[in-house]
Amino acid sequence: MKATVLRAPGDIVVEDVPDPRIELPTDAVVRVTAACICGSDLWPYRGVAERPGPVRIGHEFVGVVEEVGNDVRGLSVGSFVIAPFTISDGTCPLCVRGVHTSCLSRGNWGTPGATGTSDAGQGEAVRVPLAAGTLVPVPEAPDPAQLPDLLTLSDVMGTGHHAALVAGVRPGSSVVVVGDGAVGLCAVLAARRLGAEQVVVMSRHASRQAIARTFGASEVVEERGEEGIARIKDLFGGIGPDAVLECVGTKESMQQAVGSVRPGGMIGYVGAPYGAELPIRQLFGDNIGVRGGVAPVRSYIPELLTEVLSGDLRPGAVFDSTLPLEDVAQGYAAMDAREAVKVLLVPGGAA
Amino acid sequence: MKATVLRAPGDIVVEDVPDPRIELPTDAVVRVTAACICGSDLWPYRGVAERPGPVRIGHEFVGVVEEVGNDVRGLSVGSFVIAPFTISDGTCPLCVRGVHTSCLSRGNWGTPGATGTSDAGQGEAVRVPLAAGTLVPVPEAPDPAQLPDLLTLSDVMGTGHHAALVAGVRPGSSVVVVGDGAVGLCAVLAARRLGAEQVVVMSRHASRQAIARTFGASEVVEERGEEGIARIKDLFGGIGPDAVLECVGTKESMQQAVGSVRPGGMIGYVGAPYGAELPIRQLFGDNIGVRGGVAPVRSYIPELLTEVLSGDLRPGAVFDSTLPLEDVAQGYAAMDAREAVKVLLVPGGAA
Repeated sequence: MKATVLRAPGDIVVEDVPDPRIELPTDAVVRVTAACICGSDLWPYRGVAERPGPVRIGHEFVGVVEEVGNDVRGLSVGSFVIAPFTISDGTCPLCVRGVHTSCLSRGNWGTPGATGTSDAGQGEAVRVPLAAGTLVPVPEAPDPAQLPDLLTLSDVMGTGHHAALVAGVRPGSSVVVVGDGAVGLCAVLAARRLGAEQVVVMSRHASRQAIARTFGASEVVEERGEEGIARIKDLFGGIGPDAVLECVGTKESMQQAVGSVRPGGMIGYVGAPYGAELPIRQLFGDNIGVRGGVAPVRSYIPELLTEVLSGDLRPGAVFDSTLPLEDVAQGYAAMDAREAVKVLLVPGGAA
Repeated sequence: MKATVLRAPGDIVVEDVPDPRIELPTDAVVRVTAACICGSDLWPYRGVAERPGPVRIGHEFVGVVEEVGNDVRGLSVGSFVIAPFTISDGTCPLCVRGVHTSCLSRGNWGTPGATGTSDAGQGEAVRVPLAAGTLVPVPEAPDPAQLPDLLTLSDVMGTGHHAALVAGVRPGSSVVVVGDGAVGLCAVLAARRLGAEQVVVMSRHASRQAIARTFGASEVVEERGEEGIARIKDLFGGIGPDAVLECVGTKESMQQAVGSVRPGGMIGYVGAPYGAELPIRQLFGDNIGVRGGVAPVRSYIPELLTEVLSGDLRPGAVFDSTLPLEDVAQGYAAMDAREAVKVLLVPGGAA
């Protein structure tokens, strides 16, 4: 089959790779209907996160079960499934507590682990370890128009939801979102879904601002640094919002978050930390809480899926570009240049 | 009047100082019935926190209102009052949100501020700025036997409660308390009060262990460092407790907290950070939240006071030493040597 391989920073191609097959009785093989490129895929693409030699890449996909191992319950050949961005057994004490990303049998797509090396998501098919725990079946074959919405449940919608949830967003909350990538935009949607009264997004890109407004942002702040903090304080009664959702992970974005939130408020952070620091004395002095991390999206899919299927939740607008899998390099280049928010990839060519 | 003055690190005395008087119409003068020494007073006493020249010290006291300014509502001459460890107006947007420690008119005992320099707590009397916002009157003159319980509401009981509250402790929670000072012991009591099922305290001192057990600790761990972490993981199903209450503030105590809590859990921290750091990548990877800070005890006093007056809440056992005010130096020396958990000071000499 064909799959994406990152040969070296900046050098990404679609190559012939071995077809996936059942290796363990807990495996399934899924034929990929749609996959996508994540902002976090750009870290190894840019060489910021080092990878040893060529690696398979991609951790978001939806597809159809093609084969199941003998021990897989709850999935049948032909089931349409959503794959969250980590592999988990669904039964360990941490999965039971909803922290699937710290599953005692945790695995990552395309990476060696206790259950062998799975395929990664940006390819035609995937061997899925711990399939019964990892995959979430969709009750009926979905309307193709809903594919983008469903695909966001693999990562970005669940991650935005995580930021809002751990920051304690609830009816009436005032919220600022730092970051206008797909996760930041989904965080806007998630905060509004949880009842936030006022959601302000920090963004300098007109097209992203437009999506944010569609998702429920009431205001956009273009300023950054001290000027951005002053503008935010001003918008929220001089004290700042109840919650800031930090969806970037850099030193500057975290400083923006810490400087903006009101005393006693919460920062929900989901941007993988590349440079971000937590200034304990400042946090302590003003009772600013920080909570977040690698989002356990597996635990959120059932709840969010119901609303996606009913049409009440439409996060799919974060995909502003769709490409055939073979044009994956073009997709990475577009996201790297911030010309695309998020690129959807269709194996088989029909875009 | 007589009051305590820290002349230089290690050099603490009771001196004659000017009598307090009403300087602003929002002031009250309170005759101190009982005061005490805080673990955080040891930082300047040891010279770890620098202070310029001689300073008045002490931020915990209860007493009787002797005089009120013209604008003070809700307090009368003769009222018995509890003073929380910061001065706040009770009306600003942050007080309204319960974050009195970040009050827009915040002041600290014995320190210059917008409302002048108040007296500090370890003395015979105190000028209290913003008295209506700061002080909490007790409905009736309390039974002298309840003085220690009431005095804990100035700081340590409210601070322990803050740690447990922001860590999300609720019925059924599993909790570890790092620190066996008065705050750590109160955190044990607070966690049990909020319904924690299992509370383990880390302590190496038999007398403190005994108080912790009285307060509801089910287990004591004496090991520290990696060994302590392993012991805690072992006690909580291999994964660690839902919440760790960090009541020390050093690098080692925070490492203990971060290493012990389960993935997805919370650290409530109230130990003033002297060396403590927040390792963002470790916190992010396992979704460990951190929340805490200078406890807004003013907001907790009404609720806790009701239970103290009814006798349901008895935190006063943290005082294992009572001294006349003039023996304050002896009290500091005993706490510095960890020979006393917490020292209660009685002006006027009758101990």
